Amino acid sequence: MDFKIGFIGFGTVGQGLTEILLEKKDMLAKKFDFHYSVVAISDIMKGSVYDENGLDMRKILELVKNGKKLDEYPSGVKGMDALETIKNTNADTIVEVTFTNVKTGEPALTHIKTALQCGKHVVSTNKGPVVKQAIDLIKLARENNVYYGFEGVVLAGTPAINLFEYCLAGNHISGFKGILNGTTNYILTMMEEGMSYDEALKKAQELGYAEADPTGDVEGLDALGKVVILTNVVLGKNITWEDVERKGITDITEEDIEEAKKEKKRWKLIGSSEIQKDGSVKARVWPEKLQLNDPLAGVMGATNALTYYTDELGPVTVIGPGAGRRETGFALLIDLLNINRELKN
Amino acid sequence: MDFKIGFIGFGTVGQGLTEILLEKKDMLAKKFDFHYSVVAISDIMKGSVYDENGLDMRKILELVKNGKKLDEYPSGVKGMDALETIKNTNADTIVEVTFTNVKTGEPALTHIKTALQCGKHVVSTNKGPVVKQAIDLIKLARENNVYYGFEGVVLAGTPAINLFEYCLAGNHISGFKGILNGTTNYILTMMEEGMSYDEALKKAQELGYAEADPTGDVEGLDALGKVVILTNVVLGKNITWEDVERKGITDITEEDIEEAKKEKKRWKLIGSSEIQKDGSVKARVWPEKLQLNDPLAGVMGATNALTYYTDELGPVTVIGPGAGRRETGFALLIDLLNINRELKN
Repeated sequence: MDFKIGFIGFGTVGQGLTEILLEKKDMLAKKFDFHYSVVAISDIMKGSVYDENGLDMRKILELVKNGKKLDEYPSGVKGMDALETIKNTNADTIVEVTFTNVKTGEPALTHIKTALQCGKHVVSTNKGPVVKQAIDLIKLARENNVYYGFEGVVLAGTPAINLFEYCLAGNHISGFKGILNGTTNYILTMMEEGMSYDEALKKAQELGYAEADPTGDVEGLDALGKVVILTNVVLGKNITWEDVERKGITDITEEDIEEAKKEKKRWKLIGSSEIQKDGSVKARVWPEKLQLNDPLAGVMGATNALTYYTDELGPVTVIGPGAGRRETGFALLIDLLNINRELKN
Repeated sequence: MDFKIGFIGFGTVGQGLTEILLEKKDMLAKKFDFHYSVVAISDIMKGSVYDENGLDMRKILELVKNGKKLDEYPSGVKGMDALETIKNTNADTIVEVTFTNVKTGEPALTHIKTALQCGKHVVSTNKGPVVKQAIDLIKLARENNVYYGFEGVVLAGTPAINLFEYCLAGNHISGFKGILNGTTNYILTMMEEGMSYDEALKKAQELGYAEADPTGDVEGLDALGKVVILTNVVLGKNITWEDVERKGITDITEEDIEEAKKEKKRWKLIGSSEIQKDGSVKARVWPEKLQLNDPLAGVMGATNALTYYTDELGPVTVIGPGAGRRETGFALLIDLLNINRELKN
């Protein structure tokens, strides 16, 4: 297919995808019969530009990297906001990567709904909409005969949703257990190497793993969103934010770490969900002391991991990055490639 | 699609798939619009039976489990050999699971080629044909507008080929490293727990992990076949059996295990392949002392694991079972489900 892409939001992740698309254009065409042009970009900070015949994305990246507005692009229509760009351009595929409130899901939720209702495919790494309305959005896409790809919302480009969809389909999955937040796993790793919690947090902030306000990570809120997503999408339940028990890592002391070492165990912040005998689900984000021979115990640093409990294969674990510019950009690419595959036949 | 399945070979794996297909028939129809009947079975030991309107697979399983021949099935055409069954029945999809020589790839290679040339889809867990002629067989399938699925040849149902195909497409993969043989990993695990090599091998044989003649496992031949397959299919090279350096685990002593423990390392039999700067590939099966924080170091017992080195995501590792009746049967199911998906659009 020849995708006509419209970017809604154009921050780190959108730029990461753009770099990949530019560098790999020929390979993608040759190997996957995947062709594209970017026709529109609308970003609340950077402005917007639309050209139905396609934008020169090298020029766009240069503008943005020099801190300039998209209005300085030499041609095209300027000034269209997100919804206008979704509705009134010839883009057939929307890459939704706005800065979004993870609790309300807005503005991404409105963008995604609008695009699907307009019969446009959507790929997005925004967690909020999937936390809020995964099931409705998947249904909406199906009703409008388009695709909604959101591989990136769980472990960035590390296979989580697609692993379930394309590799484990046909299994009954009774639960999952994962290291779903890289920042906290990095902090726990550094504490195990002898740092205090405060030192480890500071180091994580220096490396860009943790925000200035680290609450979302260290209190387990980021992992909680992912538990909601996986519970609804993979286990087929319908839970909300409030249904998940939560405890972060801020209470873990250097003594706790030492004690675990002596027991040949290791602290990890685990996001998990398990279908109970009555069909309900027990979902939580909680620090757990794992046996060292647990596949998740060996996952160190900012790396993420996820174990699915399947009826045909038993536990299947995937380990990989959970964040990063190109790593998350790739999540959008794999969704586009799978849409391309579905449309090609 | 409404698959008309012909089984060529009906041993453990074929029966495993049959059990899954019977138990999950309604779910597969409802969730994936996947419908099937089994119209033919031809097994060199168990005989053969063909009914263009479909066989009662519960009856078939009962016959086979009671050690009876397929000729005792109350109706249908008897006596067709494998090639007749492939060519002269209304089966549109061949499940090829014969007992096959892994070096020559026969008789599976001939069965698979014939089926593809007849315009029939093939799913198979036979390693031999993929080791010998992966590239040619994939091409042959494409030319005949059918699919050839072989997920099961590397890690049984644990995602290896599909992980690459559906979840990591678009990445340049520069190499891989894996625990590709469960028997040897079980033996090394038991040695680490204090057994001698001979005791551990005996235990592996008692549990059915190792054959009476364990050469194929302990000398690294089984892992070697998988290295050839992954090198050709995933890295896009064209190597043969002879291009892989090989050393098994028979020389590893209890002292070696103890020494590694002291160094905080662990012996694993690693199958790996790495693209070199000149484009050639360095492929080998060799015992390696891994650091304990390597994701492969924590993989214990009969479990398998595989790390792909990707350009966009860095290392991505999958851990799961590498053998078993249902686990390998599932590999055939996931291939059928993905063919169903490709044909549906």
